[in-house]
Amino acid sequence: MKSATDPVENLAQLIACPSVTPAEAGALTALESMLAPLGFSVERPVFSEEGTPDVENLYARRSGNGPHLMFAGHTDVVPVGDEAAWKFPPFSAAIHNGQMYGRGAVDMKGGVACFTAAVARHITKHGSLKGSISFLITGDEEGPSINGTGKLLEWAKAKGESWDAAIVGEPTNPDKLGDMIKIGRRGSLSGTITVNGVQGHAAYPHLADNPVRGLVTLLDSLLYPALDKGTKDFQATNLEVTTMDVGNPAVNVIPAKATATFNIRYNDSWTDETLMAEIHNRLDRAAGRRKLRPGRKTPVNYELTWRDRPSHVFLTHDDKLVGTLTKSVEAVIGRRPQLSTSGGTSDARFIKDYCPVVEFGLVGKTMHMVDERVDIADLETLTQIYERFIEDFLA
Amino acid sequence: MKSATDPVENLAQLIACPSVTPAEAGALTALESMLAPLGFSVERPVFSEEGTPDVENLYARRSGNGPHLMFAGHTDVVPVGDEAAWKFPPFSAAIHNGQMYGRGAVDMKGGVACFTAAVARHITKHGSLKGSISFLITGDEEGPSINGTGKLLEWAKAKGESWDAAIVGEPTNPDKLGDMIKIGRRGSLSGTITVNGVQGHAAYPHLADNPVRGLVTLLDSLLYPALDKGTKDFQATNLEVTTMDVGNPAVNVIPAKATATFNIRYNDSWTDETLMAEIHNRLDRAAGRRKLRPGRKTPVNYELTWRDRPSHVFLTHDDKLVGTLTKSVEAVIGRRPQLSTSGGTSDARFIKDYCPVVEFGLVGKTMHMVDERVDIADLETLTQIYERFIEDFLA
Repeated sequence: MKSATDPVENLAQLIACPSVTPAEAGALTALESMLAPLGFSVERPVFSEEGTPDVENLYARRSGNGPHLMFAGHTDVVPVGDEAAWKFPPFSAAIHNGQMYGRGAVDMKGGVACFTAAVARHITKHGSLKGSISFLITGDEEGPSINGTGKLLEWAKAKGESWDAAIVGEPTNPDKLGDMIKIGRRGSLSGTITVNGVQGHAAYPHLADNPVRGLVTLLDSLLYPALDKGTKDFQATNLEVTTMDVGNPAVNVIPAKATATFNIRYNDSWTDETLMAEIHNRLDRAAGRRKLRPGRKTPVNYELTWRDRPSHVFLTHDDKLVGTLTKSVEAVIGRRPQLSTSGGTSDARFIKDYCPVVEFGLVGKTMHMVDERVDIADLETLTQIYERFIEDFLA
Repeated sequence: MKSATDPVENLAQLIACPSVTPAEAGALTALESMLAPLGFSVERPVFSEEGTPDVENLYARRSGNGPHLMFAGHTDVVPVGDEAAWKFPPFSAAIHNGQMYGRGAVDMKGGVACFTAAVARHITKHGSLKGSISFLITGDEEGPSINGTGKLLEWAKAKGESWDAAIVGEPTNPDKLGDMIKIGRRGSLSGTITVNGVQGHAAYPHLADNPVRGLVTLLDSLLYPALDKGTKDFQATNLEVTTMDVGNPAVNVIPAKATATFNIRYNDSWTDETLMAEIHNRLDRAAGRRKLRPGRKTPVNYELTWRDRPSHVFLTHDDKLVGTLTKSVEAVIGRRPQLSTSGGTSDARFIKDYCPVVEFGLVGKTMHMVDERVDIADLETLTQIYERFIEDFLA
């Protein structure tokens, strides 16, 4: 039986499966057919939750004596968008000018293909593993992320699994392979503010209470001053007001209600609890709940609703994990990668509660775009980096 | 032929006509049938403008040697709203417990009925007029006000008409008849601000430019500090943000555009030109067009569009008009009325360009409401005040 040592071939097989979230579309089966011959025991748990589609996931493990390394990722992909705009069909894995085209090429079937090839090469070379390796692969990373990594980790833990470290194969490099390892991520917290006023005629403002006036004051208190200036490892915490809406068409009418929603990406000077408290504090002060503002008889009547589950901030302090990966990149590429905590949230936010986790994969430039594609050369280079990392980490 | 000396009967005839803007519905015909027998020459010009309904108006004049006094008002009414909620049918002029019910009872068929009765009594008593009286009555006061008072004044002026003073019969009294004469009105000016930003992902704000942030800053600069503290004759100028809208449903997306609309009611420390200049000045400064704000590389990219035609502020300084009316009220009621410039705009804003104008009519409490109604006693009292005023003003 043929071994999965070629990342290009692995990736072509994965891209051929149109696994747009939540469809499995053969992608996990293709991965299973690569891992099973390498001695991995493969399980494919399906998770459900009311109001969300069922999602199939994959957990594969091959055990040895030594540390347990997890490779985490996903085989689901975002929709293709305007298919007619693609240079090659998005599930054809066409190769042109040294690049393979296809949805998921870099985000992140490419990472899965390379890690699989790296493991195959390691096993081919040594005949065994010094430690344990597991693949924790979800089909729900690009979707609601409810029936994916979070539940898969709980499920595996309940079976008695534990890990010494994890690497997530998301595309972390902004420009060139080897640019950037992500060693943490900011947290994310969202809320909606509703200000209730009293409707009235614009000529008789003393008989009304314009909620827009209150909302502008509240939002200003969230935007200024800045929440912090950043920390050693993180950018400054940032708050964006993503929408505010009144929907009043009449210019001579003072509206009854105004709402706004904000999203905060926060660093390790906060926990979600301390940040929520700070937001409440700023809003209460601006609303005049402690001391009335000049010109107001009552505090601004507002409600704050937190949205969704917050994503917690995290930073991986594990020297062995970070150091080994950094040296592996440097050994193959000849350059030292930047250790970063920038960017959006990822499934690493779930994993960090189980073991130290870092993220390193391909170049993300074309992710989510029409003509998503990967340099063939990068697939080989990333495979070599992963192989080196496995070798050194398990040693 | 019967003379129109009874305001209750006059009003019943007018209420019976369902003259919801722009329908004439017999209301001007009813008025004409009261005025013609009193020696008035009556004309009924219809004005048109593309995109608006044609509207019929009435101009009636009886000439004599002496000053020329205009009575201005309207016979159109606002819609009845929930007809089933009315105690009596809204065009039935039902009398119950000393009150006459009906749409337009106070706003302002009642004022028209009383002034007509006052003129009829004066002519009955003296057999003639010492000066001239004209009725300038529109059917487009509650609607777009495009084919109404403004055009009627131009039309009359073109015929050679001119006036020494005008009284508008709108319901000016907040609580009791005789409370308040309006001797001016604030101006009204509206604008829409559009801030254009750059759309992006909430986790990568440096690649985007959130227009909400800019809009909050701009609105804050309009709201604080207050535009003025009021003048001798006027309340403080007031700005209300009547709506602001983004319409972005995605909490991880920074939107591309945000808009807000504001309305200003301004006093006689401004003209519309100086006020527009102040608004532009505040916005330019807040946007950073003169000096960039900390944290911004470019000024906030905003556009300001002024809406509709502004209503100019005005104040009537004419001692004879104001003094005579004040004394007439005091003589009949026994209390001195307050001279006020409060409230919304009225058609007096058109008349003030032709002659001094004041406003005095019934009690406005039930205007525009279900069960709009007037005290029968008030109709008699207002008729006496108007009669006294005509007597003294023309003397």
